Amino acid sequence: MSAELKRLREEVAALHAELTRYGLVVWTAGNVSGRVPGEDLFVIKPSGVSYDELDADAMVVCDLEGNLVDGTRAPSSDTAAHAYVYRHMPEVGGVVHTHSTYATAWAARGEPVPCVLTMGADEFGGEIPIGPFALIGDDSIGRGIVETLRGSRSPAVLMQNHGPFTIGTDARAAVKAAVMVEDVARTVHISRQLGAPLPIAQEHVDALHDRYQNVYGQAGGNA
Amino acid sequence: MSAELKRLREEVAALHAELTRYGLVVWTAGNVSGRVPGEDLFVIKPSGVSYDELDADAMVVCDLEGNLVDGTRAPSSDTAAHAYVYRHMPEVGGVVHTHSTYATAWAARGEPVPCVLTMGADEFGGEIPIGPFALIGDDSIGRGIVETLRGSRSPAVLMQNHGPFTIGTDARAAVKAAVMVEDVARTVHISRQLGAPLPIAQEHVDALHDRYQNVYGQAGGNA
Amino acid sequence: MSAELKRLREEVAALHAELTRYGLVVWTAGNVSGRVPGEDLFVIKPSGVSYDELDADAMVVCDLEGNLVDGTRAPSSDTAAHAYVYRHMPEVGGVVHTHSTYATAWAARGEPVPCVLTMGADEFGGEIPIGPFALIGDDSIGRGIVETLRGSRSPAVLMQNHGPFTIGTDARAAVKAAVMVEDVARTVHISRQLGAPLPIAQEHVDALHDRYQNVYGQAGGNA
Amino acid sequence: MSAELKRLREEVAALHAELTRYGLVVWTAGNVSGRVPGEDLFVIKPSGVSYDELDADAMVVCDLEGNLVDGTRAPSSDTAAHAYVYRHMPEVGGVVHTHSTYATAWAARGEPVPCVLTMGADEFGGEIPIGPFALIGDDSIGRGIVETLRGSRSPAVLMQNHGPFTIGTDARAAVKAAVMVEDVARTVHISRQLGAPLPIAQEHVDALHDRYQNVYGQAGGNA
Repeated sequence: MSAELKRLREEVAALHAELTRYGLVVWTAGNVSGRVPGEDLFVIKPSGVSYDELDADAMVVCDLEGNLVDGTRAPSSDTAAHAYVYRHMPEVGGVVHTHSTYATAWAARGEPVPCVLTMGADEFGGEIPIGPFALIGDDSIGRGIVETLRGSRSPAVLMQNHGPFTIGTDARAAVKAAVMVEDVARTVHISRQLGAPLPIAQEHVDALHDRYQNVYGQAGGNA
Repeated sequence: MSAELKRLREEVAALHAELTRYGLVVWTAGNVSGRVPGEDLFVIKPSGVSYDELDADAMVVCDLEGNLVDGTRAPSSDTAAHAYVYRHMPEVGGVVHTHSTYATAWAARGEPVPCVLTMGADEFGGEIPIGPFALIGDDSIGRGIVETLRGSRSPAVLMQNHGPFTIGTDARAAVKAAVMVEDVARTVHISRQLGAPLPIAQEHVDALHDRYQNVYGQAGGNA
Repeated sequence: MSAELKRLREEVAALHAELTRYGLVVWTAGNVSGRVPGEDLFVIKPSGVSYDELDADAMVVCDLEGNLVDGTRAPSSDTAAHAYVYRHMPEVGGVVHTHSTYATAWAARGEPVPCVLTMGADEFGGEIPIGPFALIGDDSIGRGIVETLRGSRSPAVLMQNHGPFTIGTDARAAVKAAVMVEDVARTVHISRQLGAPLPIAQEHVDALHDRYQNVYGQAGGNA
Repeated sequence: MSAELKRLREEVAALHAELTRYGLVVWTAGNVSGRVPGEDLFVIKPSGVSYDELDADAMVVCDLEGNLVDGTRAPSSDTAAHAYVYRHMPEVGGVVHTHSTYATAWAARGEPVPCVLTMGADEFGGEIPIGPFALIGDDSIGRGIVETLRGSRSPAVLMQNHGPFTIGTDARAAVKAAVMVEDVARTVHISRQLGAPLPIAQEHVDALHDRYQNVYGQAGGNA
């Protein structure tokens, strides 16, 4: 195993702790993957394994068809969706799937999260879009993700009745998007419970998104 | 004490930590039990003991009438309900009872949780049903659980005005169902606060449930 | 300092950790006190001290007029209310005050929490009552607590626009009531967000409360 | 580096842990700063750095125009707003910015939080005001904060569509205000979900605020 792959296994394993830290997952219901730089491979969580037991060795490696290439366990049941995204979006280096509560609540109504927060403009550049209803078991989920996100500024899609998938240039960026999609979905939900949030003018959304993506310094982080 | 019984005491004690980890219980208000394989006995939490003090030695063993067989403390006040389930559902190896917030909120309205999430289809195969109002102190609660769950695909019943009881092939599976019933009850509640969640067609519910129960690999887990 | 007093200082200090564990308090906004058995004294939290710094030595001792008798810091700003309760309710051995979110939300509307959960019947024997609006600085708060709870089955009162006060035979029982009042207030709130919870017949409330208070074994605990 | 500056770097770094403890921030989206006593300088969080990695050495020092004076990383992207406040409000020794959920939910509707809790009267002396919508990148945010808080009893302003900024005599006081603004915003939100909270008469608001600010002992804390 190359040093690069070892490092990626460690990183992807460790990033699952961010999903539990922010309460985005229960039991084993969420997963992170990261593309192996320069190879048609990605590292992903094994299926049905508790977050407490995840370490670099437990991670599995798949090719871009979702076939197991390295590892002793079955890959996540969402592997086909991750693989589809890596196959069709070469700029994507990380994918995350959760069933985080508020994002999934919008998904169950098939309703995009409107852009009424500066944080929403910063991170998503507009509303957070809904993807189609899709059954697990073939390419439907992956296709729905790619068709929704290709050409969108949003790194997150809310798959209808299912939950959010997020992408990023690497696994860490996709995890950040998963954290942010839940935070924005929650705040907008709560705001709307007592009335209509004020819209942000499109030119302001554009200005915020542009600055956030292009100006911010180290790690591309905010605050 | 047999090695098997010792292991089961440890497992049942440890599984209570999952109830606190996911915020399903406060104070001492929830309990896990597990059937002793091949014997008419089960291991259960003692009554009124803090989750911090639970270890294998604190657990008690009861027969299927709910009588204390081994242990120095009184068994959980819900022991009769657990015993009734073990007596009448030989396929059940674990039972869990909590008062988790969102599941209990649906129970207080006597309203089943509709199946509008793929996770709901996966885990419960349809809506999460309501059981009757029943007083503690005789077989009423146990009977209500068994009558509701026998023949249902759901491993969870919301006892009216009371809270969820879940079952599984072993204690761990019943704990997983307790975690999932709260997660699904919460997400559907929140979704419905701002409008009507979209239904999932019955054929899709069936397809999701069938695949989830039969295809998934190691540990039967999702993701 | 007697061994008894030392033990009580330790117990009261430690019980504050239950307030933070269950999210009932932020910053320094909540307090626990316990009566010194056989003496006209009680142990209480000092004012404005972080929960991280609370230990037995930081606790202060007051007489039943609320005067500082032992300790190097000023007693909690709520000391007069605690003292009033100890003076007028000799059966009370512990008092707790928090601003826990859901209990305070009912208090802000001046609306008692209806008894629609078996846990509410068990712990409170009916609805959780509202006390009057009262300013801090004289006996108003204490008087409002005592007038509301004297003759009530509930160990908790929601002081209007303010928050819950709870009592018990000792400090631990009052803390348990503070945990339970928030749990019941939260679950009933959430249930009512989507419709009307089903009432529990008065005879069932009585039966549940009677059994819970009189039958349950070790530590008087549930589950 | 002076001992005073070293101590302030440590304090400001450590105070960020209060933001995560109370769930006021996700990822890197919040920051604390503290004025260097007797100098036209302040210590602030660097941009885009995880809360886990924050220690005294990671903090940066800026002048009151927001220029980096000491430190190896870029200052927080909100530095211009902090600097503006220090320039125009000499009595302010600490500034905090978060996107905490409930405070931001009121901000998205542009609606002040009414004073219906004694805690709100104590801490804010009335309603929690809304500041204008402002883009990041020039003095707009700082100006909106100062114009709203100058002459107000509230140490917190909810910047429209954005989130809360709080001030205090030092960094710790500003953090306390950030904790309290979220707590009050949450409790009032939840209260209003099921009806109208009861108002508190202005004379009572005044009496509560006056006593809380002037009478309370050690650390100016409550409870």
